Amino acid sequence: MDIHKLTRELHTKNDSKIVMLVADGVGGLPMTPGGPTELEAANTPNLDALAARGVQGASIPVLPGISPGSGPGHLGLFGYDPLQYLIGRGALEATGIGFELQENDVAVRCNFCTLDADGNISDRRAGRIATEESAPLAISLRAVKIPGVEVFVEPVKEHRFVVVFRGPGLGGHVHDTDPQATGVPPLAPRAADADSQKTAEIAAEFVKQACVLLKDEKKANGCTLRGFSAKPSLPSYQEVYGLKAAAIAVYPMYKGLARLVGMDIVGEAKTLQEEVDTLSANWNDYDFFFLHYKYTDSTGEDGAFEEKVKRIEEFDAIIPQVQALGPAVLIVTGDHSTPSYLKSHSWHPVPTLLASDCCRPDPCQAYNETECIRGGLGQFEAKYLMTLALSNAGRMGKFGA
Amino acid sequence: MDIHKLTRELHTKNDSKIVMLVADGVGGLPMTPGGPTELEAANTPNLDALAARGVQGASIPVLPGISPGSGPGHLGLFGYDPLQYLIGRGALEATGIGFELQENDVAVRCNFCTLDADGNISDRRAGRIATEESAPLAISLRAVKIPGVEVFVEPVKEHRFVVVFRGPGLGGHVHDTDPQATGVPPLAPRAADADSQKTAEIAAEFVKQACVLLKDEKKANGCTLRGFSAKPSLPSYQEVYGLKAAAIAVYPMYKGLARLVGMDIVGEAKTLQEEVDTLSANWNDYDFFFLHYKYTDSTGEDGAFEEKVKRIEEFDAIIPQVQALGPAVLIVTGDHSTPSYLKSHSWHPVPTLLASDCCRPDPCQAYNETECIRGGLGQFEAKYLMTLALSNAGRMGKFGA
Repeated sequence: MDIHKLTRELHTKNDSKIVMLVADGVGGLPMTPGGPTELEAANTPNLDALAARGVQGASIPVLPGISPGSGPGHLGLFGYDPLQYLIGRGALEATGIGFELQENDVAVRCNFCTLDADGNISDRRAGRIATEESAPLAISLRAVKIPGVEVFVEPVKEHRFVVVFRGPGLGGHVHDTDPQATGVPPLAPRAADADSQKTAEIAAEFVKQACVLLKDEKKANGCTLRGFSAKPSLPSYQEVYGLKAAAIAVYPMYKGLARLVGMDIVGEAKTLQEEVDTLSANWNDYDFFFLHYKYTDSTGEDGAFEEKVKRIEEFDAIIPQVQALGPAVLIVTGDHSTPSYLKSHSWHPVPTLLASDCCRPDPCQAYNETECIRGGLGQFEAKYLMTLALSNAGRMGKFGA
Repeated sequence: MDIHKLTRELHTKNDSKIVMLVADGVGGLPMTPGGPTELEAANTPNLDALAARGVQGASIPVLPGISPGSGPGHLGLFGYDPLQYLIGRGALEATGIGFELQENDVAVRCNFCTLDADGNISDRRAGRIATEESAPLAISLRAVKIPGVEVFVEPVKEHRFVVVFRGPGLGGHVHDTDPQATGVPPLAPRAADADSQKTAEIAAEFVKQACVLLKDEKKANGCTLRGFSAKPSLPSYQEVYGLKAAAIAVYPMYKGLARLVGMDIVGEAKTLQEEVDTLSANWNDYDFFFLHYKYTDSTGEDGAFEEKVKRIEEFDAIIPQVQALGPAVLIVTGDHSTPSYLKSHSWHPVPTLLASDCCRPDPCQAYNETECIRGGLGQFEAKYLMTLALSNAGRMGKFGA
């Protein structure tokens, strides 16, 4: 079932504001049996008061037991079935560094590699070249010129960079050229469908010119291309929900994901307080606000339990400012769990809180993993959060007579 | 969504062991209002301690309100959507008596019936003929010879027996020949598709020869054929999960179901303790173990509440031996509920327990129907149990970047 078939038909408009606060990777685990999770260890008086007033649940980002990356995690929260809307690896990498993909673009993740005298790969990651060395090399590849196509090259990190080909008639289905082995040459770019033949030819020309430009390099004298992908085509928030939506984030990845669903990126916040200030400054101009907070995830990835607890407390501290703006619906959630115990994204359901004047309260008195089990939203797939948001905002009509 | 599309792509390998203990029909009901269920009446200190350490939920075998047979019940636990993977009645009957179906086989459930002088059915079940009488008759039908096809005949119980036709080009779609009425002759076997024309002809020849062989019998002088079905084609555990899997069961049905998903059948246990010994003896040779315990179901089917309670306590007693082997993930569940009160399989969710070092604990302190309601797994479709098992075993990568 495509939820948007329903929301397109049923959504209505009013003056309400919906705010979705996403604390990335907020869900956690105890570090020792019987111990608290990060949320349970944190002192969160504002979130707890909101939980007492609102309704809670445990949102499943994709399906039970599936750990999502940031792409599917956020698409789910935005109400786009993450199993239906797949974002290619190249497109996500470009998005992650803030490259604004256009309709005719094909994005590719590239690796510098080391080639021996015979043209065989001796190191698939160019000796784990440092970013300071690789970034200028990536920029030097902007000298590649291919008739009829614009070529963009952007450094990423260490051996990785991104290439975007822009031009008419470029299909996004080309096989990876990384042979996943050393002692053999990179594969030639090979189209996976007829529409991508031109893309494969352009990619081959890019590699040829790149090898000339890199020929005097010791480590990074070649490259492999992976994850070819066209700009993902997602319907917009305006079209499926009738919402004028704004995204507030510090990191390019989350701005990019929001842009894919038609949100405007507002402000240039560098801190959480600046994000809240941006929210306040744009309050009258939008119906929906997505505000992304990164550090609950990065501390979890580092396995830094105490740091994650502190970051949760910082996040808690801004809640009153958001409430003071008077949103009709205030949602607090995460795109997935990132338990410090696992140092990685995980499959565990995410504590999710929705407060509105017409949510049906439940017994929950705090915002955390244990309390949300007895929450009124139960366990639910994250993709249903937006229909709940719209209804709680009085923005959804009745289905059927 | 085909879950196996995800597990094929995302599964990884490590040295962890996963054990799934299936207490058949374990879920129950109170016999009187306010009374305990069988699990609640039982003294289960080991399961309760495991519940306190692990996470619990209520698994829905198929969909809410649907009572499954053993086939769909187990397929769900194995992670095969029971609504997508259908096992034909003939194939399930053959599986249930331990007949090992091969690729070119078509299995058929057969009933002995009584025909009058005009060839009309006077008793559809041959006067409820006793097994001692019917089994030799079924074996006598092995005299049927059909050129180009192997014919296997196996007794089942009372008026029932199984026939398997083995040969190239045999489709599994032939209509039942039981007219579901007396006073009329059995129907001729009729193919439901072009590929099954040959099967229908062979079935007709089988019935013709069988009637000659049975012509002097008083009760069982004819037969009807139902539930024609080819061997179900299911992807294997190895392919979809990367797991080398072993099945330990006393009864042929459960060995057969496990064999359909590519598990090895290990040991020849006749008791629960022998099943645990088999588990221990094969510990180093497999990644995944399915251990089936029958008597929680059969006592439930008999309406023997106190007997079921005892069988649950016997089951509880083996838990420490299983834990001592050190599984990374230990699951306790059932393929469905079999409340003594109903004397049958039922639709009620099944108490399901998963213990691992990275499961997220919940408030549950005992393994039973009431506690599992407040479990961290919530209510979930049984088909997701395997993705949860793999993730908890550290055997699943991230979906999307």
